[in-house]
Amino acid sequence: MKHALDYIFRPRSVAVIGASRRKGSIGRETLHNILTAEFNGKVFPVNPTATVIHSIKSYSTVLDVPDAVDLAIVIVPKEGVRDVARQCGEKGVKGIVVITAGFSEVGAEGKAREMEVLKVLRDFNMRMVGPNCFGVVNTDPRVNLNATFGKTFPKVGKVGFITQSGAMGEAIMSQAKELGIGFSVVASIGNKADISSNDMLEYFKDDPNTDVILMYLENFGNPRNFTRIARDVSQVKPIVAVKSGRTKLGAKAASSHTGALAGLDVGVDALFEQAGIMRVETVEELFGVAMALTSQPVPKGNRVVVVTNAGGPGILATDALINSGMQMPNLAPATIKKLRTFSSTEASFSNPMDMVAGAGPKEYKLTLEAIEKDKRFDTIIPIFVPPVTIDQLEVARHIQTALDKTDKTVLACFMGAGEGSSGIEHLKSHDIPVYIFPEAIAKTLSTIHRYRVWRSRKRGKIQSFKVDTERVRAIVDKTEAAGLDAIVGDDAIDILTAYGIPAASYRYASTARDAVTAANEIGYPVVLKIATPTVLHKTEAGGVKVDLRSDTEVRRAFKELEKAVGSLKKGEEFSVAVQQMIAGGVETVIGMTTDPQFGPLMMFGLGGIYVEIMKDVAFRITPLTDQGAREMIRSIRSYPLLTGFRGAPPVDLGIIEETLCRVSQLVKDFDNFLEIDINPFIASPEADRCKAVDARFILRNGPAT
Amino acid sequence: MKHALDYIFRPRSVAVIGASRRKGSIGRETLHNILTAEFNGKVFPVNPTATVIHSIKSYSTVLDVPDAVDLAIVIVPKEGVRDVARQCGEKGVKGIVVITAGFSEVGAEGKAREMEVLKVLRDFNMRMVGPNCFGVVNTDPRVNLNATFGKTFPKVGKVGFITQSGAMGEAIMSQAKELGIGFSVVASIGNKADISSNDMLEYFKDDPNTDVILMYLENFGNPRNFTRIARDVSQVKPIVAVKSGRTKLGAKAASSHTGALAGLDVGVDALFEQAGIMRVETVEELFGVAMALTSQPVPKGNRVVVVTNAGGPGILATDALINSGMQMPNLAPATIKKLRTFSSTEASFSNPMDMVAGAGPKEYKLTLEAIEKDKRFDTIIPIFVPPVTIDQLEVARHIQTALDKTDKTVLACFMGAGEGSSGIEHLKSHDIPVYIFPEAIAKTLSTIHRYRVWRSRKRGKIQSFKVDTERVRAIVDKTEAAGLDAIVGDDAIDILTAYGIPAASYRYASTARDAVTAANEIGYPVVLKIATPTVLHKTEAGGVKVDLRSDTEVRRAFKELEKAVGSLKKGEEFSVAVQQMIAGGVETVIGMTTDPQFGPLMMFGLGGIYVEIMKDVAFRITPLTDQGAREMIRSIRSYPLLTGFRGAPPVDLGIIEETLCRVSQLVKDFDNFLEIDINPFIASPEADRCKAVDARFILRNGPAT
Repeated sequence: MKHALDYIFRPRSVAVIGASRRKGSIGRETLHNILTAEFNGKVFPVNPTATVIHSIKSYSTVLDVPDAVDLAIVIVPKEGVRDVARQCGEKGVKGIVVITAGFSEVGAEGKAREMEVLKVLRDFNMRMVGPNCFGVVNTDPRVNLNATFGKTFPKVGKVGFITQSGAMGEAIMSQAKELGIGFSVVASIGNKADISSNDMLEYFKDDPNTDVILMYLENFGNPRNFTRIARDVSQVKPIVAVKSGRTKLGAKAASSHTGALAGLDVGVDALFEQAGIMRVETVEELFGVAMALTSQPVPKGNRVVVVTNAGGPGILATDALINSGMQMPNLAPATIKKLRTFSSTEASFSNPMDMVAGAGPKEYKLTLEAIEKDKRFDTIIPIFVPPVTIDQLEVARHIQTALDKTDKTVLACFMGAGEGSSGIEHLKSHDIPVYIFPEAIAKTLSTIHRYRVWRSRKRGKIQSFKVDTERVRAIVDKTEAAGLDAIVGDDAIDILTAYGIPAASYRYASTARDAVTAANEIGYPVVLKIATPTVLHKTEAGGVKVDLRSDTEVRRAFKELEKAVGSLKKGEEFSVAVQQMIAGGVETVIGMTTDPQFGPLMMFGLGGIYVEIMKDVAFRITPLTDQGAREMIRSIRSYPLLTGFRGAPPVDLGIIEETLCRVSQLVKDFDNFLEIDINPFIASPEADRCKAVDARFILRNGPAT
Repeated sequence: MKHALDYIFRPRSVAVIGASRRKGSIGRETLHNILTAEFNGKVFPVNPTATVIHSIKSYSTVLDVPDAVDLAIVIVPKEGVRDVARQCGEKGVKGIVVITAGFSEVGAEGKAREMEVLKVLRDFNMRMVGPNCFGVVNTDPRVNLNATFGKTFPKVGKVGFITQSGAMGEAIMSQAKELGIGFSVVASIGNKADISSNDMLEYFKDDPNTDVILMYLENFGNPRNFTRIARDVSQVKPIVAVKSGRTKLGAKAASSHTGALAGLDVGVDALFEQAGIMRVETVEELFGVAMALTSQPVPKGNRVVVVTNAGGPGILATDALINSGMQMPNLAPATIKKLRTFSSTEASFSNPMDMVAGAGPKEYKLTLEAIEKDKRFDTIIPIFVPPVTIDQLEVARHIQTALDKTDKTVLACFMGAGEGSSGIEHLKSHDIPVYIFPEAIAKTLSTIHRYRVWRSRKRGKIQSFKVDTERVRAIVDKTEAAGLDAIVGDDAIDILTAYGIPAASYRYASTARDAVTAANEIGYPVVLKIATPTVLHKTEAGGVKVDLRSDTEVRRAFKELEKAVGSLKKGEEFSVAVQQMIAGGVETVIGMTTDPQFGPLMMFGLGGIYVEIMKDVAFRITPLTDQGAREMIRSIRSYPLLTGFRGAPPVDLGIIEETLCRVSQLVKDFDNFLEIDINPFIASPEADRCKAVDARFILRNGPAT
């Protein structure tokens, strides 16, 4: 055995503990499936009462089996799983697959039951898939293992499939079979008490039968490990995932279903983006991508050519491709010249290239051969709407012949070809995936394209800055000792300064006269903010006066703020902070938020409405690399505001990048912060005018506000 | 005949002109299809050389047919169509369907050919479908007409289908047949030389066999007529459309394919929105919606309950539904109480209601009966992932029985049920549509929900304001006489004032001293803008100085502007406009743009980046109603900025609405304008501070800048 998990996925002998003769029972179906799939090893039914099941000698316990047992499939009632596991251990079984449900997914009692089983595993150095799972499959003809209770034994193929939900696993396998998608290994990992998606990713990385990894996930065990492992695996083999629980309500359902906290969706997106996992929205998209990746190369770029015999689908394809970010350059003049020698006079030599309805097998072959030579394209999409007068199998054959040796990616569309089309079958059996609708091709290409870009991107580095941790430690300790849950004002600015983040300093004033003095020391224009009593959302409360340009304006602003605050609590003294007004920059927000599952997420967006209403904000899992910071900044829709909107000079992006990295370091050095909000951080064209103007730190120990 | 088009869609006799015996020819396939579908009337093949085709006596010309002929299908070469049409007219034929291609879709020569045929139509008062079309279908058993050359004769059903592309028509019919969607009438309208989508909409409105109208469109003949007619029809029967040519490149392909200018996509969206047409993105969505509308009522609201036997699909459904804007309230306490009496102890009584994997036919029936009584829901989505141990036909039967009499909308999901599932067939045959993936149900529901909201919305009124048209006429004439193509500055403000649109007036100054005087007359703070030389994009050119608060600041701003302009052409004198600075409002953009196909479109968005970078802008076809203006304003994403963001007081929305309506009236009164741009129009909390600050009018006769 090359790999520890080979005992589970390539066993030489299997015991089915809880095998049964009762029709419709899981014990019966599982044994039946193992036998029907013609497992290439020995099978031993185990059942306390039966002596023969399915014409095979049955044993009372696994300990009675005379031969060595690599793998046990466990289908006994939940109360008996621990003892059965112990017997397996004593027998020298290497791996168990626990199909039985009623463990951590049903609450505390189940969780305790699961822990007991885990303890047995450790005692005997066994590995486990499940509990509460659907079983495992290996289609390798040298193995032929179908240890599930489902009705689908998938086709042999190159897709390794990890599913957290048994029902989804069965649904996906069944649907995939109809589409002709084959699997190498399927693992229904259930509660993931022992073997996790991480283990499976590592197994698939080395599995020579697996080219593409599909995942259906509802939550993550350890997101940071997952990111690290998935990032490694993605470099070698593409990973496509449906992660459900995107919406709050969906997440609630996921939580009650699996007994684990489901993550905020921004966390999932950040994780997938950082790990190079292709996230798809629907199961249909999952299949679309799987079809392409298992039979075609990842395209070298995003330039696509569409060849069609019907205008309508050509337009639909074009719309969908352009909307998905693909490019559709014109044909090269030489290609057009060549095409003209044999094409119909009514053909259109643009992209989409419309051969018009009369085009038959010969036209498809000649046209595609000419276009295949055109260096302007990375992907070819032949579309065929079968007219009744043309033999679609012949067209398929000619398409395949024309593109047999191409190194371009080929995804075909046969629209309205009908069920069981011989043309579609022919192409699929020659590794050209066929889609019914052109929109599905566009979705597929855009997903794969993102992966290609990710894989070709340079890896970033985690920078290390010289900072003053002691000063931050002192402020945090002082605040916690005072029983406060937030650090604001001076202290917040001090933390930034300690971490080398430029900040506009404050001067405090409790009289209008002091405020004027401070303003003159700083230099006009200035900003006045209420300092005490502490008002967290200052703008909303009308607690900020900006762009004050004279002593008179400062005096008036002071009075207005004082009036706005109204009567004070006993012992409180009204005061304001006077700060330099930084004009001409762009307000950004740099921060950190803590996801209950993913931990700290770095955040970046433009100030005010952009983050709060337009939701135009980027998240990343910490620690952030320099490259990660670059990408964050560039990924927001309002990015053009930073690069010089309407003739304004571009802001200094380097300072924003560095600030993001410095905050990431702060988050790494101190686990005290639940949230960090530097808002606004003014980004200016000149480096020395880029400054944090206000900041607040919410402490983990206090209640979040 | 009740309707003029009944001669085409319910003919008593059909001549097939160009019928042929040659295998694979369109003439052969069309005749073959008519006979195979067992047309309930007389068929007369017409062919100059044959005497018998398909065992039926054939005639040299239509004039030789001894009986009356209602409809002629024309498949002769393009050069002969005119003469054949003339013979049809002489014979007294009422309608012709011209399948032959080679008309306006191939350029000027073809266009001329088409005009000649149209002239013949008028001479004889005949109607025509085509040319360049796929034919027509009527599945009514009393008609049984399949006058197409395709391979699909659709199922009998309630969908009326209009398609501009023959290939798409065939593809859609073929795919629909697989999904069990039936059609009443199919019209492939080709070049729409005579019978247009408008004619078909009106025909379907009155057709008792048609409940739902599907359209595949590539362009519009007369968008304003289309809007008017579609709006009427939508009130009675739902219209679902795929309009292709969404992207610029797609539009280009649509244009070369159909020989008509394709509209900008914003125009299409505005039109569909105003006409109550459900626009779907893909053909798959088209089917999803068609399935629901032909068998289920439009839901009364957007409250959905999901009942499932598997957690995974339940979560997927929840995510998709919430993301599509649906609501998923909790079950009522009484419902939960009832459910507890028979449900599994592991069931989850939230929404989605998870009955867990053991649920069989009885559980489905009892659960759905209880939930059907819960008044909190408008739509029920039963999800079933068939476990191998449970009979899916029985589950389907029990689902159907439980929901047989409900007035709620029911859309079912059988995930992984496999091809030709007996359960799916059972539900479909009992008018419960079944989807394979829950995401498709969410898309469908959200599309139908938008339609429901549209249908229940009150109709708006076109307001009429007292305005000074003569003043505008004078300014337009003067500008055109001067050979200029844009109206800016004073004149532009004057036009607004003439139409009762509040505007901040200008004072001009050509010296710093005059500027200071003007500023003092207006009152500080003020804005200075370069007036001459004319600079269209003032902000970009640095030609605007805002928020000037003192004589000193005005003087400095004047000098800076003068310096920015640099040397002047001979005869030009530098001058600035001094204007009141309106602080504290929100900058909006109100305008009009001319779409090459749709004509004037009203436009609304927030100023600056919101329109230009975030593309957060609403369009409407003119004339605009008061209700239309209301909806425009509320449809932009940044709308919350207008209603009081971060404690700011809400702006006066009434003034914006009225201004939009007044601009719409201006557009109606004057067809001289190609573009109108009121930018910014300041929206303030107080009505008397809402003002246009700058405007420009691009004239139609001049080149657009």
